[in-house]
Amino acid sequence: MDPAARRKTLRLLSNGVYVLTSRSDAHFGAATVSWVSQASFKPPLLMAAVRRESNVFRCLAQSRSAALHILSEQQQHIARSFFFPTKADADTINGEPYVQGSTVAPILTSLAAHVECEVDRIVDTGGDHAVVILRVVEAACREPIRPLTVAQTSWEYGG
Amino acid sequence: MDPAARRKTLRLLSNGVYVLTSRSDAHFGAATVSWVSQASFKPPLLMAAVRRESNVFRCLAQSRSAALHILSEQQQHIARSFFFPTKADADTINGEPYVQGSTVAPILTSLAAHVECEVDRIVDTGGDHAVVILRVVEAACREPIRPLTVAQTSWEYGG
Repeated sequence: MDPAARRKTLRLLSNGVYVLTSRSDAHFGAATVSWVSQASFKPPLLMAAVRRESNVFRCLAQSRSAALHILSEQQQHIARSFFFPTKADADTINGEPYVQGSTVAPILTSLAAHVECEVDRIVDTGGDHAVVILRVVEAACREPIRPLTVAQTSWEYGG
Repeated sequence: MDPAARRKTLRLLSNGVYVLTSRSDAHFGAATVSWVSQASFKPPLLMAAVRRESNVFRCLAQSRSAALHILSEQQQHIARSFFFPTKADADTINGEPYVQGSTVAPILTSLAAHVECEVDRIVDTGGDHAVVILRVVEAACREPIRPLTVAQTSWEYGG
């Protein structure tokens, strides 16, 4: 397989831009992710490919819960803050305010839409990301947003 | 959880529109799918949530191979043809011409970009779709395209 053709083709897959958060006791994990999709209507499941060495992966593997936040077209700068290592205090994660939701995963209040999830299973694919199957247990959309997609940014994550 | 809030929030996830094909001996399966994402760079893996009762699922589960085609913005009508049951003859599937690729999965020649995959594993999530982990073994992008997304159509698949 020609690596350039593979890269070019896989970059045509369409993805959104999200912030995934989790917490395990005093440890917080939060990261911008894009390899996410729904995986079932009934029960409502998501699948997310998450870097195995990330803080957010370690936290969700331990606590078995996570929250996925949907960014709006105007919130690219927030996605950028979560490219950096997680830095949390009592009120903020990477500068963004959070509250406790119905699971232990922190909810970022500057993002209008999110789902709270329990980890259903973690699939070890042998790849550089684990596939995490998440069961949606709570959802909120506080105001209408136009979701940010990878295609709208100058970023590329795929290939 | 409020079902209306769940539906509204999950419909904010961004997805592309693809045609997934497979073949097992004389049986062909092809369907429009949107719950797809890359899942690893190394090795190159995809994850696709596929309706368990579909022809394409049965074919890929048996033959362990599938091809994912990326539709362009101008090819919404082709996506529509693959909403219907698979009807194949020696040259066409649901009216679209195909050739044999490097696996047994048929390649639709009217779609400019596709990847050929081997089924790495099928995860039974207990949901209404199986999560299929696909290893990309071949890729082609014969001309530059702007990929079709669910958001550009009047369709909704999520919630």
